[in-house]
Amino acid sequence: MNNGHKVGGLDNYSRRLYVDELQAMSLTPIRHPKTRHNLMKEHRNYLGWSSTSLHTDYMELCHVLDQCQPDAIVHLAEMPSAPWSMMNRGNCIETHNANMVGTLNLLFAMREKCPSAHLLKLGTMGEYGTPNVDIPEGMFELEFRGRKDKVMFPRKAGSWYHLTKVHDTHNIEFACRNWGMRSTDIMQGVVFGVRTPTLPDESEYLTRFDYDECFGTAVNRFCAQAIVERSITVYGKGGQTRGWIPLQDSVRCMRLAIESPPDLGEYRVFNQFATQWSVNELGAVVQSVSNEMGLTPFVANIDNPRNEMEEHYYNPDCNGLRSIGYEPSTDMETLVGDLIADLIPFKDRIIKEKLLPKIQWR
Amino acid sequence: MNNGHKVGGLDNYSRRLYVDELQAMSLTPIRHPKTRHNLMKEHRNYLGWSSTSLHTDYMELCHVLDQCQPDAIVHLAEMPSAPWSMMNRGNCIETHNANMVGTLNLLFAMREKCPSAHLLKLGTMGEYGTPNVDIPEGMFELEFRGRKDKVMFPRKAGSWYHLTKVHDTHNIEFACRNWGMRSTDIMQGVVFGVRTPTLPDESEYLTRFDYDECFGTAVNRFCAQAIVERSITVYGKGGQTRGWIPLQDSVRCMRLAIESPPDLGEYRVFNQFATQWSVNELGAVVQSVSNEMGLTPFVANIDNPRNEMEEHYYNPDCNGLRSIGYEPSTDMETLVGDLIADLIPFKDRIIKEKLLPKIQWR
Repeated sequence: MNNGHKVGGLDNYSRRLYVDELQAMSLTPIRHPKTRHNLMKEHRNYLGWSSTSLHTDYMELCHVLDQCQPDAIVHLAEMPSAPWSMMNRGNCIETHNANMVGTLNLLFAMREKCPSAHLLKLGTMGEYGTPNVDIPEGMFELEFRGRKDKVMFPRKAGSWYHLTKVHDTHNIEFACRNWGMRSTDIMQGVVFGVRTPTLPDESEYLTRFDYDECFGTAVNRFCAQAIVERSITVYGKGGQTRGWIPLQDSVRCMRLAIESPPDLGEYRVFNQFATQWSVNELGAVVQSVSNEMGLTPFVANIDNPRNEMEEHYYNPDCNGLRSIGYEPSTDMETLVGDLIADLIPFKDRIIKEKLLPKIQWR
Repeated sequence: MNNGHKVGGLDNYSRRLYVDELQAMSLTPIRHPKTRHNLMKEHRNYLGWSSTSLHTDYMELCHVLDQCQPDAIVHLAEMPSAPWSMMNRGNCIETHNANMVGTLNLLFAMREKCPSAHLLKLGTMGEYGTPNVDIPEGMFELEFRGRKDKVMFPRKAGSWYHLTKVHDTHNIEFACRNWGMRSTDIMQGVVFGVRTPTLPDESEYLTRFDYDECFGTAVNRFCAQAIVERSITVYGKGGQTRGWIPLQDSVRCMRLAIESPPDLGEYRVFNQFATQWSVNELGAVVQSVSNEMGLTPFVANIDNPRNEMEEHYYNPDCNGLRSIGYEPSTDMETLVGDLIADLIPFKDRIIKEKLLPKIQWR
């Protein structure tokens, strides 16, 4: 909004419900939606908010798109947890329903109300899995038995959640190909941090920070463990390598993608991360940063509840966003330190039994 | 059943409902489910039937699997029409729901009740689209920037229906990889004919034959058009090439796959077709065969309601089924002739306005 974009939103607040059901809570005391909405109303570029579920309320979705006539739609409205999707059949199917039907409804509503708008969809680097070859950005030129074609790079997801993202990818590519829509599909690394470049640094605007096994990622869990000086629990051998990106970089990338949209009919994929770490490396970073702050957590490799390769090749491309102006934050250790510093005031809110995993993948 | 296998089934009869809603009907007068069930009861290897929807009645599904303890499950219970899935948003989402939730429920129920059973799942050659390279069977060794990995061959589906099959493919592969289940995923060409190798040739056992634009395929539509001496309507230039397989071959392939199951944890893909024809070639075959029977239809290339390449490279592998004993029927013209002969007695049941397409793809 500080860059002159007018912004409105839709949300069904399901993340709050999911975390609540797990008897976990955000480490940062995130404000009630109404309070946040009222704060935002003071901003002159704020268009408003609608309490809508993409996957159940198609009419309201159409109404909002019709009223706003957006140039770009950032789709962050998916159930985001791999472990949650793996808990049981109900969660697997709810993940498929919320994510896929939500995205399909959005595609149909855009086609009906704003077919030229740019859909910026959040996917995940986890769609690719950990292949033994380089990972291009979404599509690539396949050479096979002496012939060539530009095709989707094969996906190999490791959870029902990640699979729904793969399914979305195929559906969105088809909508671009068949209906002439345009989309940027972002294969995002693991996001961390609570600061954004645009929102004021006041507690009323604080974003949420989950550290439980479902909605907290490794970096969140490790930071929470460091703060209460519990062991930093690396799953398995810890050679699992992933891309990581600070929240402020992620938000900057979205702005850059919106300001350089793809052509009509184009389906564009960006891999989005600032750095690569194995989980062992991440554990060492959190340990060393927290040591400097006077905290003394150990690192412990525990049984891996997931089914994933613990040692593997990993070399994803990340050129698309750089070509439109993204300069990744470089001093990641400082950003991890900032995050821990931001969290320490809320230290007493940590529910310690939520720091260890219970959900088994197999 | 004639090969000594005990067979039971589940069905929600949705195909009958779908066709009914379109005000179309099977050209062959297929008997009421109860009548067919009563006929089957006379066979000593018939286990029984349950009126169950895979995607809505998980409890009954579990109960049936628990009672039967099947060695193999043949999953034919999906909404099978690409045009139907493209009609509107409701049909798109119902297709996702029926096909994907149905298959997920089946995977969870098998895991719970019969985790060693072999899942024989019907996919479609349409999952691959028409790439400019050879099409291997499901998985292949990718060589990329000097490194190699065995990965899923990229899919490029051309309708919401075909996309749900791609999604199923990814979900089933994951169930095999993560839970150690076993599956044969069959990428089937277009099936034609009403005869099977096992059922007696009597009208009480007749299988259905749809020729409308949704549930009838090109070969069915062409045969129906030949019988009433209407133009055989080829969509567009007619260079669209596909694999085709007679129903009796399809049934034989299923038996062969059941009798040579994959190992536990194995996800195996077979491409299944007996021959390849372009739609122009198919039109010429139907015309020439029907000419010999004294019928004189013309062939007409009409505007293509679909969005598909009308001239393209097409070279799919088809080795897996041959390696377990499948010998494709060779005299396909005779089989098309048999089909037309089987249909002529029901000629007066053809609803002529159902022979032309109305659903636009884009």
